[in-house]
This record gives sequence, structure tokens and C-alpha cells, in this order.
Amino acid sequence: MTTQNIGILHPGEMGISVAASAKNSGHSVFWVSQGRSEATRARAERFDLRELRSLSELCETCSMIISVCPPKYAGELSQQVLQAGFKGIFLDANAISPMRSQEIGKQMALVGVEYVDGGIIGGPAWQENSTFLYLSGFQSAQVADCFEQGPLVTRIIGEEIGRASAMKMCYAAKTKGMTALLCSIVATANELGVWEDLERHWSAEVSGAGRKTVEDIRKVTAKAWRFSGEMEEIASTLDFAGLPDGFHKSAADTYQRMAHFKDHEELPELEEVLRSLVRSS
Amino acid sequence: MTTQNIGILHPGEMGISVAASAKNSGHSVFWVSQGRSEATRARAERFDLRELRSLSELCETCSMIISVCPPKYAGELSQQVLQAGFKGIFLDANAISPMRSQEIGKQMALVGVEYVDGGIIGGPAWQENSTFLYLSGFQSAQVADCFEQGPLVTRIIGEEIGRASAMKMCYAAKTKGMTALLCSIVATANELGVWEDLERHWSAEVSGAGRKTVEDIRKVTAKAWRFSGEMEEIASTLDFAGLPDGFHKSAADTYQRMAHFKDHEELPELEEVLRSLVRSS
Repeated sequence: MTTQNIGILHPGEMGISVAASAKNSGHSVFWVSQGRSEATRARAERFDLRELRSLSELCETCSMIISVCPPKYAGELSQQVLQAGFKGIFLDANAISPMRSQEIGKQMALVGVEYVDGGIIGGPAWQENSTFLYLSGFQSAQVADCFEQGPLVTRIIGEEIGRASAMKMCYAAKTKGMTALLCSIVATANELGVWEDLERHWSAEVSGAGRKTVEDIRKVTAKAWRFSGEMEEIASTLDFAGLPDGFHKSAADTYQRMAHFKDHEELPELEEVLRSLVRSS
Repeated sequence: MTTQNIGILHPGEMGISVAASAKNSGHSVFWVSQGRSEATRARAERFDLRELRSLSELCETCSMIISVCPPKYAGELSQQVLQAGFKGIFLDANAISPMRSQEIGKQMALVGVEYVDGGIIGGPAWQENSTFLYLSGFQSAQVADCFEQGPLVTRIIGEEIGRASAMKMCYAAKTKGMTALLCSIVATANELGVWEDLERHWSAEVSGAGRKTVEDIRKVTAKAWRFSGEMEEIASTLDFAGLPDGFHKSAADTYQRMAHFKDHEELPELEEVLRSLVRSS
């Protein structure tokens, strides 16, 4: 196969791993330095991505652009790519609802951009068989070809835009929904003075369950700031499908209350997290 | 210890197992036949409970009355016991919020009834070390004594009314909350055409996970009719503690949509359950 020029928007923690799999597969990967942080520059340089100054240069240079960003920026980023006159394949790999993906796809189709819907399941793709890029849309195979050497695994699940996003939404609805639920339950138990009893009961059922729950709650604080928007996308996905959206609206609320832990250098103690979770009325 | 006369309101599937543990421990257990179903009579007779015709006879005969009923009837049942002039120990073992338990406790205290707060974790108590009656309140030890031969296990967790209910609420918030969440996620995946992909992904992560989820969803249909009220109690418990209540409001909604499966003789197929879960708009 021929070497392609691929643009990555942007090389964050996930994006850089996607870029690395494309490079592993023999392609040239470009990034746009304008407006990016020093941390992003450091990642791009460590993996020898090729720097471009502006989005319009990226749109001219690349035959494929991949969007990997927090869900709330997905629409804006796709608009900027459109306005920069891109002609090629655009992959949105973000945690957005299938309806939002379809909306972006429609706008892309109007100007002749070939849109592929994507959803990433798993953390940054540094190990074999652990991170999965689900794809749907007519050009899915062309996208999958770009990652054939992995470690990112691609899975094509149809031609319809929205299917890959639906898959991502449903998968994260369970994992991140359950973690948020646990956070709120433990905070409730703590407020009502039964957390030690509950931890003892859980640990008697499954050895180590109490301790694992505590560690899961402490660990999620570092990522909560970006999970909140994803939970909103999931809530609207359930609502669209005719199911109750309250699970994930409350999950969004739960993660929002932990958002300020984003830049903590050390994981906070459980007590501090639980205090943050209680609404000050 | 002395044999006590204990009243059980009512010998449903859980109540009869509580009654059986009291009988095992050497006590006489009474029930009230007025207004009860044939199924309840059959259970009471099978375990040789002593029949009384009216609640006032029960209140005269027994030194302890135990309430085991669906959460929405808990308040009404305690009122009836009050009005019948009961003087003794009253255990509310229902899945109600700590605030409701405290409210019932206050009314009981005003007329000199000794109120104990209880919460049952586990299914009907037929096996050793599998069903736990959490107790709080000053007379908890007297209640625990009545079950000392088991198999129902008692655990006293304090003197404050509401602690045992809080424990029950937080425990069920996880188990039944997660099952409801799974039901809604699978129905969403099915509506959006990605259920097979999701099941395959889950099963690749944990062998048999997809099949287990399907069986959990089918099985919960038989109990959903009574879980809905319990989820409302849990939602108000989280709200009271300052946490988001949407998880369990949506869980109540989810179980309500399955309530009509109560009297099905056979478990419904997954497809039928999922169709019921989708709101017809």
C-alpha cells in the first residue's frame, strides 16, 4: 500500500497513540502546532510527528484527518476543517452521540468530504489487543488500512454513520456509568455513617472489593473533568433510543463535582473525594 | 431464653423465611389471615405458623411484630399496628429510606412502642450465611436474640434509627441500580443496532459476560414490579445525602417498564423485554 499523509487533531494522550499506530503502519503523520500546549508539542516531538503551523496547511497536506478530542470540541473542530477547505477522508473518533456524528457527517457530505464515524474503546493504544477503534461508513476500510500494523485494533461494523458512535456510547455507558454510580453510593454511605459497614459487607462477598472500590474512586478523579461531557452525550443517546436518561445525567453531575481534581499531582484521599461529591446546599 | 410470641406482617416469600428463622430459634410465630392471598396461607401453613384473624388479635398476642412488605405499604402497615394499640417491639425490616424509617420510629415512640430499624440484604433466608438482617436502635439486641439459630444472620450496627435502612439502601443502590442500568444500555444498543457487537465485545473481555447479562435481564423481570418502589426510596436517600438522584429515578422507571412481567409463568425472551423497555413516544 502507498504511504499516506495523515493529520491528527490533536496529539493528546489518546491522539498520540493513534498517531503512533499510523506511523507504525508506514504513514506520515502531521500535527498543527498553532494554539497547542507544550505538553502536546512534547508528545508530537517524541513520536517524530511532522509539524505544520496551521489547520489550512494540514488540510492541504493530508488525504485523511483524524479528530480525537474531548466531546464538546468535536463539532467545532469538524467545522474548522470544513471551513479550511479539506477534501479527503475525515474520521471523527470522539465520544459523541450517534446523532451528533450523523449531523457532522451530513455537513461533511455536502462539501464532498468522505466522513467516517469512529469510536475508541480502551485507553491509549500502546499494547496489542487492548484498544479498539470501531468504524462505520463507506470509507471505513480505507481508515482501517492506515492502522494495519497496530497496536490499535480496528473493527468495521457497518456502512451506516452513527453505528460506531453508538457502540462507543453503549460501552462507556456501562463502565463509566457504573463508576459514577459507585462514587455516589459510597459518598451517600459515608454521609449516612454506614460506609465502614458497607465496605465490610462488600469485602465479605468478594475479597478485596471494598479496597478496589476505594482505589477506583480515587483514580477516576484524574479523568472526571472529561468524562462529564461524555456522560451528557450518553444521556442524550439513551433518550434518543427511548430509554431513561437519568443514569447518565447523574453520572455527568457526579464527574462534574470531581472535575477540579484534574491537575492534582497526587491522587486525593477518599475522604476528600467524598466531600467534593456532596452537594453543598 | 424465654419463648416469645412474634407476629409477622406478612409471610410473603421473604417474610416466611424470617418467620422460619424465628421458629428455628424456639419462638411462636403468628400471622394474620384477614385479607391475605391463598399463596400466603399456603406458606403459613407449610411452616406451621399460628393463624390469627385480625391485626388487633396479633397486637394483643405478640410482644414483637415484624413488618416485611413492599416499601410502599410500610407506612400504612405501621399506622395500622399503632392504631390497633400495640405495645411491644416493632421491627420495620423494609426497603425504605432512613428518613421514612425515622418518621415511623418517631410516631411509634410517641405511643410507647419500641421501634427497631431493619434492612434485609440477600434473598429469602434458607441457607446459612447468605441473608443478613441489619439492625439499629436501642432494642436491636432483643430482635437479634429472636433469630439466634438462623439461618437468617443478624448484624447490629448502632443505636440510631435509620442506620440499618441506610445500609440496605446503599447496598441495593449498587446491585439493583447496576442491573437497571444494564437493562437500559442493552435496550439502547438493540435500538441502535449494535447489541450483537456490544455482546461480542463484552464476551471477549470476560468469557460468558454477554450471556450472563442476557440472563440477568430476563431474570429480573419477575421481580421488577417491586424493585421500582425500592428504587424511589433509594433515589430519595441519595438526594437527602446531597448526591444526584437520577441514577435511581431512572432505575425506578426502568423497572416500572418491566412491571407487567410479574405474573408471567416463563421468563420472557430478551427481545420481548427490550421492546418493553423502550418508551413508546
